[in-house]
Amino acid sequence: MSESTVSERVDIDLGARSYPILIGAHLLEDAALIDAHVRARSVLIVTNETIAPLYVPTLRRSLGERRIAEVVLPDGEQHKHLTTVSRIFDALMEARMNRDAAVIALGGGVVGDMAGFAAACYQRGIDYIQIPTTLLAQVDSSVGGKTGVNHPKGKNMIGAFHQPRCVIADVATLETLSDREYRAGLAEVVKYGLIYDVDFLGWLEANAEALATRERRAIIHAVRRSCEIKARVVALDERESGLRAILNLGHTFGHAIETASGYGNWLHGEAVAAGMCIAADMSARLGWITTADRERAVQLLVRFGLPTEAPKIGATRALALMGMDKKVLEGRVRLVLLRSLGRAEVVGDYPAEALNATLAQHFE
Amino acid sequence: MSESTVSERVDIDLGARSYPILIGAHLLEDAALIDAHVRARSVLIVTNETIAPLYVPTLRRSLGERRIAEVVLPDGEQHKHLTTVSRIFDALMEARMNRDAAVIALGGGVVGDMAGFAAACYQRGIDYIQIPTTLLAQVDSSVGGKTGVNHPKGKNMIGAFHQPRCVIADVATLETLSDREYRAGLAEVVKYGLIYDVDFLGWLEANAEALATRERRAIIHAVRRSCEIKARVVALDERESGLRAILNLGHTFGHAIETASGYGNWLHGEAVAAGMCIAADMSARLGWITTADRERAVQLLVRFGLPTEAPKIGATRALALMGMDKKVLEGRVRLVLLRSLGRAEVVGDYPAEALNATLAQHFE
Repeated sequence: MSESTVSERVDIDLGARSYPILIGAHLLEDAALIDAHVRARSVLIVTNETIAPLYVPTLRRSLGERRIAEVVLPDGEQHKHLTTVSRIFDALMEARMNRDAAVIALGGGVVGDMAGFAAACYQRGIDYIQIPTTLLAQVDSSVGGKTGVNHPKGKNMIGAFHQPRCVIADVATLETLSDREYRAGLAEVVKYGLIYDVDFLGWLEANAEALATRERRAIIHAVRRSCEIKARVVALDERESGLRAILNLGHTFGHAIETASGYGNWLHGEAVAAGMCIAADMSARLGWITTADRERAVQLLVRFGLPTEAPKIGATRALALMGMDKKVLEGRVRLVLLRSLGRAEVVGDYPAEALNATLAQHFE
Repeated sequence: MSESTVSERVDIDLGARSYPILIGAHLLEDAALIDAHVRARSVLIVTNETIAPLYVPTLRRSLGERRIAEVVLPDGEQHKHLTTVSRIFDALMEARMNRDAAVIALGGGVVGDMAGFAAACYQRGIDYIQIPTTLLAQVDSSVGGKTGVNHPKGKNMIGAFHQPRCVIADVATLETLSDREYRAGLAEVVKYGLIYDVDFLGWLEANAEALATRERRAIIHAVRRSCEIKARVVALDERESGLRAILNLGHTFGHAIETASGYGNWLHGEAVAAGMCIAADMSARLGWITTADRERAVQLLVRFGLPTEAPKIGATRALALMGMDKKVLEGRVRLVLLRSLGRAEVVGDYPAEALNATLAQHFE
């Protein structure tokens, strides 16, 4: 195999911390590619029970003569906490990894978040390479440098910003994803169209069938465009003080859904899909988008088999769960809404009645 | 009280992350000063069992109308691990602290390391204010932004760089320090003279009596000059790739002593004192300093009542324990040695026999 396995490349420009996202099929088998992009001679592979038997042997082969250690974590968001990260530290210490070692995250977003956080903290920061094996991780975790874990009382409350040295997005690994997980990834893809690029939204509508049936050409384009959009937004606001928050479209409502249902019962992308429908509805109530726009968003999510309605947890409970969200400044819940299709905004000065009516509609 | 409680001020210049170190007596009681330098309206005080009854009431009074939560940790280096940091996260979540809250570390280096690490990771980074109450913390933790905890297999293996917004070094709090802890702090003060400023070394010799008896004027000068020297070194090398490592004079040997003895049996400063004597001896063996220079260093430490000899743990064990130290690059143990009094260097190309002879002399 050769570099020709790379179909697309997105370069994330962060000065000294710039890195490439390599997108293509069967990249994991491409020893020359892996060798060229993993500088470290000692690596710890962090993966989970589901992924380990599928892809670790291939990755080990491609890593060649490096010193390789491995830690296999339990699979699932419910394990994304500090105690599991401790196991990564234990593995790094056990293998006597030094500052010149690298952590390779092989798996979905949960593996990436924990492996990246461990890499950020081990000896106050070592190299980190991402090999995302879910669609959600390929389009979301590849850009932004966010790593971390959940606290029993809130998602992603403990973490660090830590940029990877390289992201290797091998779309062939998506073949082993369940339909449900694959579709959850498509929710985030739709999000990029909604918040930033109405043309991409149109492309998604035109290619919905190809994406739903996992056509490789369509997936590669969707991953590339999603990473480009996220990179554009993040580059304008690396530390998440303002614009970057538009990436959270659907997430504040979605967090309420996830938390109320217990982590893991709703997939993240599913909660985001339902949350985006709520955000679109509130945007329509404010007269920012038309009801036809709202229906375009809802219908695309329906075509991808995603949930578009929230569980009836009650408006009061939903509001309380939204209140503990990280996007709170001095008690005021800021929301990401759609000024138009393809243009999201963070707003704090909406009429309280609009939020209350929206919550009543969707959660009661 | 007023700003006049501040006797000395050292400004740490780090661009957008610049902050002041305020040095003086009874700063904690100076409500106007505390109010001016703590921007956050919600704070979590992190302290330990020993410090809490001594200084928390005063600090609370000076914090005025802010929303204040508090977490009291057990006292001692043996508690500096991830599980204890979890308690800080729990307290932050319990008090529903948001991104605009600040963590105030009130205590010694252990409290500061853990509180700073928690602040670095909570919601991926919130404000952090240091109120160091030990001499060691005032001269060491005030500058450099290092935070973190120990792993069962190695010191400070898990951590982050996170700069405080402000350091308030109230030398009146040193009055409640035990003699042993106070002297351990003087070891680091001597270190600054040895590595960077032979004039300061002379000043320490001239004022050894005043320092040993805790004269306030002498302490304030020692804290100021120590912070200045550390800031100078760190500013030249913020991410510790090169020069900054001279701050570790005595620390590689010292870590071996601390680890072999079990954390907490030797105070950090005591181990550093003995470690600096070993480093000075090796420097003399290489002909870089004279034996008279070496004796000057040893005698100053003796006057401060510090240990100048290592426990007989065996040269092989010492070497193994040094090998796991963070200052290792690809298996080669780099050492901080004295090119002359007042000028330290990091060296990796020393003759192996010099190290072996030194280890045999001190550890056998």
